This record gives sequence, structure tokens and C-alpha cells, in this order.
Amino acid sequence: MAKKSNKKIKIAALGGLGEIGKNLTLIEYGEDIIVVDCGMGFPDDDMLGVDLVIPDLTYLKANADKIRGVFLTHGHEDHIGAVPYLLDELDVPIYGTRLTIGIIKYKLEEHKIPFKPRLNCVSAGDVISAGSMSVEFIHVNHSIADACALAIFTPLGTVVHTGDFKLDLTPIDGEVMDLTRFGELGREGVLLMLCESTNAERPGFTPSEKTVGESLKSIFMRHHKKRIVITTFSSNVHRVQQIIDISVAHKRKVAVIGRSMQNIVNAAIELGYMHVPAGAIIDIGDVKNYNPENVTVITTGSQGEPMSALYRMAFADRAKLSLGHDDLVVISANPIPGNEKMVDKIINEFSKNNISVFRDNSVETHVSGHACQGEIKLLHALLKPKYFMPIHGEHKHLAAAREVARSVGQDASTIFISETGKVLEITSKSAKLNGNVPSGALFVDGSGVGDVGNIVLRDRKHLSEDGIIIVAASVSMEEQLLLSGPEIVTRGFVYMRESEELINDLRRLAYDTIYDALDRGTHDWAHLKNMIKDDLSRYIYSKTKRRPMILPVLLDE
Amino acid sequence: MAKKSNKKIKIAALGGLGEIGKNLTLIEYGEDIIVVDCGMGFPDDDMLGVDLVIPDLTYLKANADKIRGVFLTHGHEDHIGAVPYLLDELDVPIYGTRLTIGIIKYKLEEHKIPFKPRLNCVSAGDVISAGSMSVEFIHVNHSIADACALAIFTPLGTVVHTGDFKLDLTPIDGEVMDLTRFGELGREGVLLMLCESTNAERPGFTPSEKTVGESLKSIFMRHHKKRIVITTFSSNVHRVQQIIDISVAHKRKVAVIGRSMQNIVNAAIELGYMHVPAGAIIDIGDVKNYNPENVTVITTGSQGEPMSALYRMAFADRAKLSLGHDDLVVISANPIPGNEKMVDKIINEFSKNNISVFRDNSVETHVSGHACQGEIKLLHALLKPKYFMPIHGEHKHLAAAREVARSVGQDASTIFISETGKVLEITSKSAKLNGNVPSGALFVDGSGVGDVGNIVLRDRKHLSEDGIIIVAASVSMEEQLLLSGPEIVTRGFVYMRESEELINDLRRLAYDTIYDALDRGTHDWAHLKNMIKDDLSRYIYSKTKRRPMILPVLLDE
Repeated sequence: MAKKSNKKIKIAALGGLGEIGKNLTLIEYGEDIIVVDCGMGFPDDDMLGVDLVIPDLTYLKANADKIRGVFLTHGHEDHIGAVPYLLDELDVPIYGTRLTIGIIKYKLEEHKIPFKPRLNCVSAGDVISAGSMSVEFIHVNHSIADACALAIFTPLGTVVHTGDFKLDLTPIDGEVMDLTRFGELGREGVLLMLCESTNAERPGFTPSEKTVGESLKSIFMRHHKKRIVITTFSSNVHRVQQIIDISVAHKRKVAVIGRSMQNIVNAAIELGYMHVPAGAIIDIGDVKNYNPENVTVITTGSQGEPMSALYRMAFADRAKLSLGHDDLVVISANPIPGNEKMVDKIINEFSKNNISVFRDNSVETHVSGHACQGEIKLLHALLKPKYFMPIHGEHKHLAAAREVARSVGQDASTIFISETGKVLEITSKSAKLNGNVPSGALFVDGSGVGDVGNIVLRDRKHLSEDGIIIVAASVSMEEQLLLSGPEIVTRGFVYMRESEELINDLRRLAYDTIYDALDRGTHDWAHLKNMIKDDLSRYIYSKTKRRPMILPVLLDE
Repeated sequence: MAKKSNKKIKIAALGGLGEIGKNLTLIEYGEDIIVVDCGMGFPDDDMLGVDLVIPDLTYLKANADKIRGVFLTHGHEDHIGAVPYLLDELDVPIYGTRLTIGIIKYKLEEHKIPFKPRLNCVSAGDVISAGSMSVEFIHVNHSIADACALAIFTPLGTVVHTGDFKLDLTPIDGEVMDLTRFGELGREGVLLMLCESTNAERPGFTPSEKTVGESLKSIFMRHHKKRIVITTFSSNVHRVQQIIDISVAHKRKVAVIGRSMQNIVNAAIELGYMHVPAGAIIDIGDVKNYNPENVTVITTGSQGEPMSALYRMAFADRAKLSLGHDDLVVISANPIPGNEKMVDKIINEFSKNNISVFRDNSVETHVSGHACQGEIKLLHALLKPKYFMPIHGEHKHLAAAREVARSVGQDASTIFISETGKVLEITSKSAKLNGNVPSGALFVDGSGVGDVGNIVLRDRKHLSEDGIIIVAASVSMEEQLLLSGPEIVTRGFVYMRESEELINDLRRLAYDTIYDALDRGTHDWAHLKNMIKDDLSRYIYSKTKRRPMILPVLLDE
């Protein structure tokens, strides 16, 4: 290979492009690879039984010796959730800010990593050397504290990866995103801007986290006689801080319920990201000793999760707290697409029991943590990137981000709409999408990673729709005799006792099919099984218009 | 029984109270029952494999001789979809306006009803005598033409059932809902108002259907060079009329695609509900003969339905039309809760292929057909009902409607929040919720009605999550011998070839379990099956953290 062909940067995502979640972007130059984030995703509706999804790590495993580090932008699951699975296989250094690393440590305790992981705490402003490249952490605002964008300095120029961000001019922790540093980078020249696109369909700017505080204050004032039970994303440390502050101002004690909420609150207090006056927090078991107007309960379950504390309170199912007319439930979160009906289920159950529920309607009880069109335009103005590639979004988000970039004058030929696995190749002269790296989704089900694939999912889907009919028989191929059976067993099809006649028909039919085949001297088991399948399938469809899975099990003797 | 106890009205819903869909309300006085609507519902996510849901009709079947008629408010599926199932069992007269009856006729052709159904066409203003009661049809606005509310005159007073409605002051067909008649009824005195509550959480009034026309006009003007492919609810005759009108004005031919859209357009033209200039509609096959700017395509698929015409166009899957950069896709509908991700899937696929999609963001491409808080208050002002009961809604909607009623001064003691199956009993002196009628959901799966119940659904759910492991063996209980097997067969669990070792372990374990049992002289098959289940289940969970269904099938010889 000619020498000049080495002078190029390859940018590829192993997840998060054209899909939501499992964000992982890699920047490769020569013998060095920088990994940005390593997140998990949630399964789609058709991934039956799958617990979570992680990126296929084949490319990283094949190039393990090149990896100079995994740089984490912030501590959300879709950015760090696959780190334990990566560390299960590769011993590479991890870099992140203090809260991010703190959350990772909690996660790693659940996994048994075969070596002591190399976790490195950094602060915004730090620059980490990574082979021929280096990485600078830059403070941004987001719905979790301690979030950063990254400036990746390569021999061909600077790549800015925004991570997830928004502009918050009145942030809870007092730190507006570091606009000046973005401006300096822009003045020095930015080769490529990798920009999150989650909210690229929305015009304007994302409101400040503080607006939620104002809304919550008015809710606390208007409902000052009620106990307030409030749910939000557990990772939104600033939201929780605001709820605690308002509660303290209203002379309310605060109880925290739900494992992930308790974990995060404990971690945030311990690491100094949350400030709680002594005695403000009480045990959930002590809530009963206080009048309703003197208690706020902060709980998990904002997405309607079936095992969450809020769900259990709604359905009075082994709940640690039972709610009544003295309670006001406040939902300080929007449902993630796909979760709407689960959240509604909880609201309906509270409504049915005459318990008031307050959610985002006229009063704003939630704001997004992601950049709207305004913020994306602002970063364009500051960074003036030569090339632009939107990341972290479904195809519709990427397309919307392209329109935003064009609206501020970015030339169409310098905008790249990529997808997971595709490689953007940049040389000193040009940039183009060129080739692929191995990518895909690994399904995590129970303790197994990757052993549930499309065939298994297709079977689960089939089973879920019409159930299964098992035809078991013991056959002697040698003697050409049916020794026992056929037995018909069904699951998920219809009530056996309501369909006795049908089952008897099936048994007779299977019997006839087996005997016909034996009479004709069949020795081909696969063929016999297919005949049973076909005959029964046709008969069942004609009688019921259903297509259950039919599974002949033949025992040979 | 004392005579005076007969002087009461019983109002009960067999569906649609505390749930969405399968609306069916009945009003009973003495020996007479009036049925209002007979709708179907869509299955919840956990009703795996269920095609649709209908109300349990036990109460109607037990009181068949009392039924004076089924009165249909309008032609939407959630109000008429169960009529064929009702007519399968009961020969009762059906009343509805012309479009409603026209749609019913289409539906009945698919079912084979054992008698000639008694379908009666009525017009707004008609009063139908029904035993000791009578029923008047009153014109309202809704997202389907020819919708009515009902005034039911009983010996104890007038019950007004709003059906689904909204106030449209600039309706496409020129007929504002009959406010005067509602006012007259109010002046005469209304005993009970049964009011739909779908939009009771939303303040203000629902915008006019005509606002959508204005938005569509501006889209047609701005994209005058593109072919416009537009999807909406097929039953929204007025929307389709507007799209045709705008297309004709822009010198575009119109092609209609998707079976239900074609059916409704044909029926609406035939019945005079839609007016189309000669030659305006072309066959979908002829679209290729026109320039993009001269064609509008109206299609099904506004909810992202996987077999719809729009879905097939997005995924280029046996589509009758292939879309490209000359096309603009317009979604003139909002996703029904639960369908968001299906709609997004289509939008993402179009975005991926660089085909523009326009949906309701800043420009209004859809309006609801249901009453917001404004309309509910307006009807309160006109009807001044003695008692109020919200219907057609989940619990949260019913609760919201209660608050609306209270805000206009309805006393809390006169508001009844009921649920499916509960009876509201009204005498000349009082009203109270008292007792129940049999109610519930029947699941329709294929051609079967009611033979899929909760056990079957639970099995389907179990199968869908972790699959099934079948343990087949042939055992002679008499000789206490394992004759053949055990064979292990799995579906939806893991790839067999990736788990050969595990399957071998399971076979050995099953073998040991059977031999242990036989050695101990077991003759109890159920017990032996349970032992196999328990042993394998424990082992699998310890190895995989999964809980597949384990199904021992033992053949006796």
C-alpha cells in the first residue's frame, strides 16, 4: 500500500446511527482507535424476551491492540451500558468524569470482570493523549450532571463529538456549557462535527432545567395539603436536587423509593453532586409518622416500568407505601416512545382509585436534555466545521439535522448521513462514505449474550401469535410400525377442553399420515415430519384460520 | 317484588368504560332494553395473537326478548365492529344513518349471518319507538360523516347519549351539530347525560376539520412540483373529500390505494357523501403516465399498519407504486396511543431513502374528531342534566370529564364514574351505582371467538419470552422401563447448535430424573412430569438465567 493512503481518519459508529441507543462511535487513524461511548439499547417490540441490546464488538476485538481508550461523554445507559460487556472481553482504559465513573463502578460490581478495570477520572478541560491523537473533555449541559463533549485532535484536524447536550443558561449546578471553548476550537478550525440529533425535528431551544423547578414550585404551593409522590428519571440528579430543595423550603421531609433512585441519590450525595441538609431525607418506613403535607416521596417508575416502585403503588402490589386521597402523584418525565401505554396504565389505575395525577399538560413538569434546532445552529456558528455528520438518532432525526445544517449554510456535499457500520473516510483533501466495519446488535437475554438470534426471535414471534401443537409418536422405522402415540399436546393455542373434537381430529389425521408413510415404506424422518406438519397445518387453518407452530417429535425404537 | 321497584332505569356499559373501544351501552326499563352501539376493540400488547376484542354478549343473549333495537351513533369500528358477532347470535333490529348502515352492509358480506338482518336507515331528527321508550337521532360533528347523538325518552325522563362528537362551526358538509335540539332537550329537562370523554384532558375546543384543509392547501402550494402521497383514516370521508378538492384545484389526478380506502371512497361516492368530478380519479396503475406534479395518491397506512399500502411503499415490498425523490409523503393523522413506533418505523424508512415526510408539527395536518373540554362544557350548558356519567374513555379520561363537569357546577353527588359491567340505577328520586351485569372481553383470533382465554394468553406470553423446551420419552410404566428418548427439542430458546452442550446436559438430567423415578417405582405420570419440569427448570435457570416453558411429553407403551 502507498504511504499516503495511511493519512486518513476513519469514523464509524457501531451503534446509534439510524437507530436509538447503543451509542458507540470510533475514530481511527493509523494504528490508533479512539472509542467514544459504549452504550446499550432497549429491545424493539419484536425482540421478544430480549432484555437489552448491545453493539456487536467484533471490530473492536479484532483491533484490540489499537484501542487507546474508551472515552465516555456522560453516565446514561445508552452511552455506558455496554461497558461491562466490553470489559468482559477487552482490557482497555476507560475515561470519564467523576459521576460517570462513579456510576460505572456500581455497574461493574454486578459483573465479574476477569481483571481490575482501568478506570480513569477526568475533569472538563483535561486532555488525554491517545497514540497519535488526543482527546479533550468539554463541559456541556444535559439531563445528567458532569456531561461532556469531546474534541479529538487528529493529525488531519479536530473532530468534535458533541455527546448528548443542550444549552442551559440557568443550569442547576451553575455551569453553562463551555461556549468559549467551542468558539476557540472553531477559530482554530474544526474538520468534522459529530452532532447528536435526538431533538433535531424541534424548532427553538430546549428550555432550562430551572423552568421545571418553577412549575414544581407552583404545584407544591397549590397542593400544599397533599403528600406529593413524584417520579422522574433516576439519573436526573439536578431534577432530584430541585425536588429536594422545594420540599425543604415547604417543610417537607423527603423519602426516596426504588432501587435505582436510591443508588443514584446515594452516589450523587457521596460524590458531592447533590446537597441535602441533614435530616431532610427519611426512610420510606417512617413516612407514616408524618402528616401528608410534610412529606415528598421521590420514586422510580416514570416510564411505567412494571416492577417499579410507582407501578407497585398504583396496583397496591407489595408496595412499600399505600396511596390514597391525600396523595398527589406528579410525573416529571415524558414517556420514551413506545412507553406511552405503560405510563397510561399507571395513570389509569390511579384515576380509577380516585388518586390525582399531575403530568405535563399546561404546566411544564419536564424538559428534554437534548439539543433542539437552536442549539445545533449555535454549535454550527461556533465550530464552523468543514464536514458535518449527525449522530445519535433514527433516520428521521438524522434527516432533520441535515436540514438544520443546510439552513445555516453548510454545503450539502459536506454533510454525511451515515448509518451504523458505515465508514466515513476523511483525508486531507476530501471526505466520503466508504465501506463498512462489522456491526450489528447482540441480544442479551438472561445471562446469555448473542445466543438469541433472528431464528430464535422468529420462533418466539410465531409461538406468541398462535401457540404450538406438538405431535409426539414413537415409531419403529426398522419394523415400519407406529409403537405409541400420536399424542397431541398444545400450548398457547386454545383451551384443550374447548377444542377436544379438534384435538381428536388432529390425532386421527396424524395417525393416518404416519401409517400412510410407513405403508409406502418411508425411511426419511425429515420427510415424515414435514408431511405431518403440512397435513395438520392445512386442517387447522381450514377449521380455525390460525397457524400455530406444529412440531412433530418422533421417537425411534 | 313491590311494584315501585320496577320504576327504574338501568344503565350499563358492556364495553368502553375504563377502557378504549368495544363501546356498547345499554339502557333498560322494565321489559325493554335499548342497545347503543356495538363496537370492537383492538387487543392490548399483552393479548398476543388476538386479532380483535368484542364485548361479552352474555347479558344480551340472556335477555334477547327484551332488546328493542341496536342504535348505532356512527360508523367507526369501535362503535359498529361487533355488530356481525351480535347478529351471529341474535336477530334484533339495527338502526343507523345511511353511511353507517352502508358500512355495516360491507361488513356483513364477510360474515354469513343465519338470517336476513333487519337493517333500518334513519335520518337525524327521526324518532324510533322502542317499547316503553323511544330514541331520537340528533346530528353531531365527528371525524366520520352522518354521526349522531341519541335522545332516549324513558318514562322516568330523557337520557342523552352523545356518541362521539365535536363542535365544528365550519364543517365540510355544511351541517353544524344540532345545538338547538340539544337546547330544547335541556329546556324540557334531561335526566342523564352520557358523554364521551376521549379528549376530556384537553382544554379548549377541537379545531374545525377545515383547518386541516388550509394546512394541506399550503403544503400543496409549497410542494407544487412533487407528487403528493397522503395518508389518513379511511373512514374520514370529509378529509378525503378535502384532499380530492385541493388536488382538483391544483390540476392533479387522484389515485386511491389500499383496500379499506378504496371501499370507503366507493361507498361514500355511491351514497352521495363524497363528490368527485368525472375523470378526477385514476387507477393506481396509471399513475406512471402522469408527471409527479399532476398526481395525488391517497393511501391507507396512517397508523403504520404492517400490511398497509403505505408500509409496502416505504419498504418497497410488493408495492403498487415505488416512491422516490419526486415524492412528498404527508401523514394526515396522529398515531393512536400504542402505534407511535409503528408510524415512526415508516417515517424512518422513508428518511433513510431520502424521501421527504411531512407530519403534524408546526402545520396542522390533522385534527381530532372528539370533544375537548370546551365542547363538554357547552353541552352541559345546553342540556343541564340532572345526572352526569362520562363514557368512552380510560379511567384517566373519565376522571378528567368529572373535573370538567364539576368546573361548570355539576354537583359531585350527581356525577357517576362507572366502569364496564357496573349498573347505574336511576329511580324518580335518586341515582346510584348498584350491582353488575356480566361483562368482559371476548378475544377473536382467526375464526374463533372466545376460545382464546387468559390461560392461553399466559402461555403465549411465556412462550414469547423464553421459548419452549420439549422433553419427549417413551416409557413403559408397567415394565418400569425407559423405552426411548428422552429427546430434547427447543423452539425460541437458543440456537441448538450454539447450545449443544447445554442440550446434552438436559438430556442426561432428564434421563436421570426418569430413571430415579422408575427405580423408586413411580406410577404417577403427573408427578414424574413435574419432577422433570422442576429439575430441568432449575438447571436451565442456573446456567442461563432464563425460564423457558418446559413441556415433558411421555408416551406410554
